[in-house]
Amino acid sequence: MANFYVDTTTVVHEIPDNSRPKFYMFGVPSYTNMGDQAVSLAERQYIENEFPEYQYIEILEEDDDYAIPVIQEHLQPKDIIAFTGGGNMGNLYHNHEEARRKVFSTFVNNLTISFPQSIHFEENEDGEIEKKKSQSAYRKNPNLVLVARDAQSFHRMQTTFDNPVIFTPDMVLYMNAVDLKFKRHGALFVLRHDSEKVVKQSTIDNIKEMLGTERPIDRVDTVLDEPQKITPVTREALFDAELELFSHQEMIITDRWHAMVFSVLTGTPCLLFGNSYGKGKHAYIDWLEHVNWIDYTDETDIDRIKELMRYLVAQNRHDYDVKKDFRQLRDVITGYAHKRQND
Amino acid sequence: MANFYVDTTTVVHEIPDNSRPKFYMFGVPSYTNMGDQAVSLAERQYIENEFPEYQYIEILEEDDDYAIPVIQEHLQPKDIIAFTGGGNMGNLYHNHEEARRKVFSTFVNNLTISFPQSIHFEENEDGEIEKKKSQSAYRKNPNLVLVARDAQSFHRMQTTFDNPVIFTPDMVLYMNAVDLKFKRHGALFVLRHDSEKVVKQSTIDNIKEMLGTERPIDRVDTVLDEPQKITPVTREALFDAELELFSHQEMIITDRWHAMVFSVLTGTPCLLFGNSYGKGKHAYIDWLEHVNWIDYTDETDIDRIKELMRYLVAQNRHDYDVKKDFRQLRDVITGYAHKRQND
Repeated sequence: MANFYVDTTTVVHEIPDNSRPKFYMFGVPSYTNMGDQAVSLAERQYIENEFPEYQYIEILEEDDDYAIPVIQEHLQPKDIIAFTGGGNMGNLYHNHEEARRKVFSTFVNNLTISFPQSIHFEENEDGEIEKKKSQSAYRKNPNLVLVARDAQSFHRMQTTFDNPVIFTPDMVLYMNAVDLKFKRHGALFVLRHDSEKVVKQSTIDNIKEMLGTERPIDRVDTVLDEPQKITPVTREALFDAELELFSHQEMIITDRWHAMVFSVLTGTPCLLFGNSYGKGKHAYIDWLEHVNWIDYTDETDIDRIKELMRYLVAQNRHDYDVKKDFRQLRDVITGYAHKRQND
Repeated sequence: MANFYVDTTTVVHEIPDNSRPKFYMFGVPSYTNMGDQAVSLAERQYIENEFPEYQYIEILEEDDDYAIPVIQEHLQPKDIIAFTGGGNMGNLYHNHEEARRKVFSTFVNNLTISFPQSIHFEENEDGEIEKKKSQSAYRKNPNLVLVARDAQSFHRMQTTFDNPVIFTPDMVLYMNAVDLKFKRHGALFVLRHDSEKVVKQSTIDNIKEMLGTERPIDRVDTVLDEPQKITPVTREALFDAELELFSHQEMIITDRWHAMVFSVLTGTPCLLFGNSYGKGKHAYIDWLEHVNWIDYTDETDIDRIKELMRYLVAQNRHDYDVKKDFRQLRDVITGYAHKRQND
């Protein structure tokens, strides 16, 4: 059965029968990575705020196969197809890349937008095979526009695909900052457990030891153990809870890009370490180097790390302005709406 | 008297009277910064290779005032106006920014392209005053497209100006690599003397000492002392000489972004240090991090610097492919030519 999330409270099984042009967002996560959940929340907010004439409809990734034929039947020339953003284009997550290929190679007559992603095809046999599959699928869609969320990915997408590539920040940076004014107490390690992990356990242990026992120190991941599943109906409360958690901390130490983004939104000092292919490093340097209370490092020397952390906790919050950096995306959507209006 | 460089051997005082659409490049340097000279050479090669239907005409920056009225008189709807790229948008070089404002605010009815630049308005009174002047001038031109050559500049241009901003590498990265197969001997320090300089003399002295007396060590700048003036007629030979100089070196140590670019083109190991506002760092990380024989660092610890340099000199040359990263520029020019064709 096809499920369509028409707003953040309502799931329907048929496409709403009205004259509004539709914005279909595919690949929406139900898994519990709060980074990816925040991306899908931000995508809805972005389209609903900036293009209120469009009716925004989300399809969970596991519902793609049921939803595709229904949407094909109802598709109108002004409708826009999109696939959710994140950090999973490439061969590290076959399921997501396969879902993406299917959507891109199916809806070839409408503007199709691959929302802001970073990309990594490994330089090995699997990487080469998967890359060829993606090239072949993406090539079928002359109306496909790829969005890169960092310059490394912009370069990689342009050298991998023939489709036009535009450049914007990660969608979660479209979200408004919050100031919860909690008393901050303790430090939080937000660390990945997956194949992208590269930060050494000895570095983490040294930081823990350096922080001492004066303050509470916890370790979590942005991938939640509970609940088992998150939908567009339940994600916002969990996102708000995540921002509350961050707003209680004096310091975040992480190798998760979105933990840095949550730190930006909440004004929480944050030190980001690398993943296997630099997606966090590049996104930080491209969009956030001017934000004083966060930093990226590959450092392993504990004295230097201490110095960095001391600097970060001493910083004051200030304005940072990245919303204008979504302009290339806005121009693509506006241009399409205008063109189809005149057709 | 207005001088128009119609090719790299011919200066004329009138605009060629033929039916070809014209591509006017303003702000072309006659000063002896080989980085900026290489930019202007690459710009001509780019347009002549990619858009051979256009007749490319260069105007030296000091000739702008004479040339503007002549061009105004002859301007056709398909003609394109451009201002040369580099690293001087902002308030550090008033003369260049003033020339840019004049061109942008004059030719408001034709596609106007600010070629790939980095931008820096200082956070002080002069920066604020100059920024307002530029905002006011750029705003007058609804057909002006700004090109950023690094993500930091992309963000800054988008938050400073309302004009659309596109993203490409520095134009010199459009040039073909050369392999002169010289025997490499010695190390070359290529260091700036200007207000952007931040690398410490003690760091330079430590590197010199570390390199020892086994090999020749020279110091130069990419700003030449001789000749006094360079024109589109004389620049290519000087550019070739620069690539020859680099091709003789085992190692380049520099704080000049274009010295890193020349090292990329010649396959010369190169360690780049920062300038006052990160233009080299950002351009390196955005476009060249995958090139094995070059690196960027802010390091001051001589042991770590030694380790970095050891790594670089041990690397082999390999292909790097950034030409596809000029696609957004190509699409802007193609789109304009197509639109004016149909008008």
